[in-house]
Amino acid sequence: MAAQLPAKLKPAARVAGQRQDVWSIVNEAAAASPVQPIVNMGQGFFGYNPPDFIINAAKSALNRVDCNQYSPTKGRPRLKKAISDAYAPLWGRKLDPETEITITTGANEGMLSAFMAFIEPGDEVIIFEPFFDQYISNIEMPGGKIVYVPLSPPKDGSTRTSSAAEWTVDFEKLEKAITPKTKMIVINTPHNPVGKVFSKDELQRIGDLCVKNEIIILSDEVYDRLYYVPFTRIATLSPEIENLTLTVGSAGKNFYATGWRVGWLMGPPHLIQYVSAAHTRICYSSVSPLQEACAVGKFDVSNLSRPEFIHGA
Amino acid sequence: MAAQLPAKLKPAARVAGQRQDVWSIVNEAAAASPVQPIVNMGQGFFGYNPPDFIINAAKSALNRVDCNQYSPTKGRPRLKKAISDAYAPLWGRKLDPETEITITTGANEGMLSAFMAFIEPGDEVIIFEPFFDQYISNIEMPGGKIVYVPLSPPKDGSTRTSSAAEWTVDFEKLEKAITPKTKMIVINTPHNPVGKVFSKDELQRIGDLCVKNEIIILSDEVYDRLYYVPFTRIATLSPEIENLTLTVGSAGKNFYATGWRVGWLMGPPHLIQYVSAAHTRICYSSVSPLQEACAVGKFDVSNLSRPEFIHGA
Repeated sequence: MAAQLPAKLKPAARVAGQRQDVWSIVNEAAAASPVQPIVNMGQGFFGYNPPDFIINAAKSALNRVDCNQYSPTKGRPRLKKAISDAYAPLWGRKLDPETEITITTGANEGMLSAFMAFIEPGDEVIIFEPFFDQYISNIEMPGGKIVYVPLSPPKDGSTRTSSAAEWTVDFEKLEKAITPKTKMIVINTPHNPVGKVFSKDELQRIGDLCVKNEIIILSDEVYDRLYYVPFTRIATLSPEIENLTLTVGSAGKNFYATGWRVGWLMGPPHLIQYVSAAHTRICYSSVSPLQEACAVGKFDVSNLSRPEFIHGA
Repeated sequence: MAAQLPAKLKPAARVAGQRQDVWSIVNEAAAASPVQPIVNMGQGFFGYNPPDFIINAAKSALNRVDCNQYSPTKGRPRLKKAISDAYAPLWGRKLDPETEITITTGANEGMLSAFMAFIEPGDEVIIFEPFFDQYISNIEMPGGKIVYVPLSPPKDGSTRTSSAAEWTVDFEKLEKAITPKTKMIVINTPHNPVGKVFSKDELQRIGDLCVKNEIIILSDEVYDRLYYVPFTRIATLSPEIENLTLTVGSAGKNFYATGWRVGWLMGPPHLIQYVSAAHTRICYSSVSPLQEACAVGKFDVSNLSRPEFIHGA
């Protein structure tokens, strides 16, 4: 028996590198630590369960035939309506559930869908360093070229305890990074791993640059409900900026259920329709009973009084 | 407000076509039918629930913290062991859960992961016509070129009722379709939509051609447990064929739970490792509580006495 692959059948370049992901590196380091037990802060998941009301909603959904079979590729209508309702006070208007919201298989596959929708080989995508590891493969999969712009810690950051807000965007470097091939930029606020929440002024300047240079903004806001005071969402700054912005949300982070794989993208119909098309080609549809559970969770206004749902309105 | 996208930001070619999928076409036709109610046979889902034992397993899993957070990217160990056990009598040996099985977000994303793992732009993939619609976008996403080979109905098929087994492979056409760029071939048995189960002789001839020409075989067997008599799996025909074969399975079809999005690929480590790598980059991990439920379902040997689990051993 030929115990290996003929040379002709080598894997595609996009997976051939076998580069280890950052979580595997951290998990192995944690396991090898002489100090045990150890708190592994390498991966953003929770050491406790989602709230009971959402677990119970999932169990109820499992009793329903329509919740165990395929959902519409763009997501369950009830969840899209719930998301529209939940974001309305934060957005200043109600998003149209049919054309401005699409459900994805977690935020990660949602972001991949956005890159698959708009990036052709050679197109450039700007990301700020440091960044969430998975952006790299998501951008490289459709052939995108990553252009890095640093977020800079305060100059004396190594000698005193500083706030994440003191990390700054170097706008001179950002402007220099923009070329005619720049098609998208990724913003992450609240930021993983730094914790920085971008200021309104910073977002306005980034947004204005994107309007001027015609760049799609992918705003990864999956940690929005783990941050307990008001913050600015770039999509809400002006109609011109909103016109170019895709905002990413995550039930996994909102409801402490990272294993549920329910996320969503919000934005204008001329962006969302292509994200939906890419998602249909990648995953077809997303997990039905857990979509329905998230819809129930968002729908129940009484949940908004729980500490975990206090949010800047 | 600019109500549309600047010309520079046009969508990528892979989604720009906005070609309607076959299910939307059939669903719209069904809705427009003057005869109502109508049985819509356009999409392979179920009008009833998964069996109670698996629903109950899912509800139990929802109580467990580890079942609500991220699973390992390659899948939950218990599910991989359950799949190894369940397939052992059909395969003639136990697959190694660690290196020969990987869990995906439904069979669909599993197949996409296989193409993403091995197809570079311009590589050719042979599929038999008619075919499951989603193969097209799955192959095109990494830039593959599709080469069609017809399955032929019996010559008098339009004038008498014939068996799906009478559809035949034209081996002359298949051999002519193979070029130095042919990297993969897709087999679908039991076949959607024809219902044909490929004979051992047909699979042996296809397998021998793939060994001779060094072609990876992607065998889509998601309907295996909806077919109630023994049938041949191409991976089991010889070590040389197994060495080139990825076999696709689906919890959605096995357990009447198409909305659960749990599937798997099985094959030799030198193929599976790259499928896993692609899956990690596409979806990161798959839905945790429903993976665990499927593991429990497969584990319970008493389930094998249910009619829906009778299967050629």
